[in-house]
Amino acid sequence: MIADASELAAIQIQYQQRINQYLSKAIDQLPEQGTALKAAMGHGLLLGGKRARPFLVYATAHMLKVPLAKVDAAAAAIECIHAYSLIHDDLPAMDDDELRRGQPTCHVAYDEATAILAGDALQTMAFELLSNADSDLHANIQIQLIRSLSRASGYQGMCGGQGMDLAATDQHVALQRLEQIHAAKTGALLRCAVEMAAIVAELPEQETDCLLTFARDIGLAFQVQDDILDVTSDTETLGKPQGSDQAANKSTYPALLGLSGARQKADSLLQSALHALQTLPYNSAQLEAFARYIVSRDH
Amino acid sequence: MIADASELAAIQIQYQQRINQYLSKAIDQLPEQGTALKAAMGHGLLLGGKRARPFLVYATAHMLKVPLAKVDAAAAAIECIHAYSLIHDDLPAMDDDELRRGQPTCHVAYDEATAILAGDALQTMAFELLSNADSDLHANIQIQLIRSLSRASGYQGMCGGQGMDLAATDQHVALQRLEQIHAAKTGALLRCAVEMAAIVAELPEQETDCLLTFARDIGLAFQVQDDILDVTSDTETLGKPQGSDQAANKSTYPALLGLSGARQKADSLLQSALHALQTLPYNSAQLEAFARYIVSRDH
Repeated sequence: MIADASELAAIQIQYQQRINQYLSKAIDQLPEQGTALKAAMGHGLLLGGKRARPFLVYATAHMLKVPLAKVDAAAAAIECIHAYSLIHDDLPAMDDDELRRGQPTCHVAYDEATAILAGDALQTMAFELLSNADSDLHANIQIQLIRSLSRASGYQGMCGGQGMDLAATDQHVALQRLEQIHAAKTGALLRCAVEMAAIVAELPEQETDCLLTFARDIGLAFQVQDDILDVTSDTETLGKPQGSDQAANKSTYPALLGLSGARQKADSLLQSALHALQTLPYNSAQLEAFARYIVSRDH
Repeated sequence: MIADASELAAIQIQYQQRINQYLSKAIDQLPEQGTALKAAMGHGLLLGGKRARPFLVYATAHMLKVPLAKVDAAAAAIECIHAYSLIHDDLPAMDDDELRRGQPTCHVAYDEATAILAGDALQTMAFELLSNADSDLHANIQIQLIRSLSRASGYQGMCGGQGMDLAATDQHVALQRLEQIHAAKTGALLRCAVEMAAIVAELPEQETDCLLTFARDIGLAFQVQDDILDVTSDTETLGKPQGSDQAANKSTYPALLGLSGARQKADSLLQSALHALQTLPYNSAQLEAFARYIVSRDH
């Protein structure tokens, strides 16, 4: 067990610095083309963020005794996918958000065409990083990573979830559908983060399944907590407008379960996640602490 | 040598039917999600088109005596990338086109948000197809295919070229920059089509280089001819508004070289492409005929 939140915070910072350095280098290495595209990609990829997905990759790798250098590309690729999805989600035709992490969104800082392209190029970069010729991973492992990431981010994962989310705006959505939406929209990528570390570790299927259960539960808990914070936090703490879900007339857990019902839901998901971890014969302190953080964070 | 254009046409139709069937199946297999996303992906991917990139994959594979079944996924993946790029290029924030192949563009048939997502999901699908677990290709070949396609379609390929193209609108652009733009925007993917077949054939590097020279030349010839047709053809034949390059104030080969200069340019590229093919010890009849078609087509 990690004793307290400050130890987790130190590890989070360590992993954040590691991934930020890796991603900065990937952007820096792109040749200049006399356009704003490279800068727009950097704007979307490098301006902060919790780096929850890379954290899960690194913490799972650490638990499974995989050298972190072996999962750098996986951590970077999944963050490229996440970053591209935020750029596109923020577009006027989608959520029309002007502020993200306290900064102007990509299409505000640049323009819509550049933001669309920057998102497109960041998605491609994810697969370029995973197919890197200099990787010391076996091709068979690289292919499994690409298969995991493409499934999690495409029609049957994140993109499909975003499509269902758009279709659900201004609609009454039952709890089961809401869970299906979030399992695809945000859950699939969080599961993928854990799965990619398991792939590099060549973990047996049964143990991988326990990890995926853990990831599924904290993924949903993450979303429940996001919905709670949209109601209870303030714009400055969130780095995005408070109440924007309500303003967009989106179905949320507090709307369906009430605020205290939503809090109970988050806690029961946390307990289920911790239980899944405890069945594994590893020191899962970092993942445990992260799961607790998920449901107690204030932004 | 193929004797006449009708023989080429028969082969083009055969390859078109092959790729259309493969792509239709890939879309059909996606589960319904109660949204328009699947239909929008199909709209962008299945409504016609010359299938030039799959043709190049298949014709090169045929020349190198690779069974076509071994390059189906590559042909499909490259067409997914091409289709996604057209959906995004047509968006109001980009070229703002309402007509493509005589049909309403994706954001007109559906809406902008759905079109953005459909493009995103089609890009992902390309990498999902190439990392398919049921492939009978060795993982090392699959990784090389993914590396080739991601390089050709990202910042250093198609996306970067589109960025340079956007930046060049309303600007005077010198011939050298125009070639740089097209080499990235359309050329990279055409080169990739040929390269992917060479990868599956495990062709020696020197022969691959000759094929890439061929592909570079016909790629540029393709663009020169596109520019010529924008001036000389009509909207009905083109399936998109005639004169749209001029209307968008884009630099074109006819604008820089005059119409007859542009025609000379296309012909000299054709000769160079044919010369590169003739250095190879294969029956390159299909690729030769295709190169001739590129500069003689009327749409």
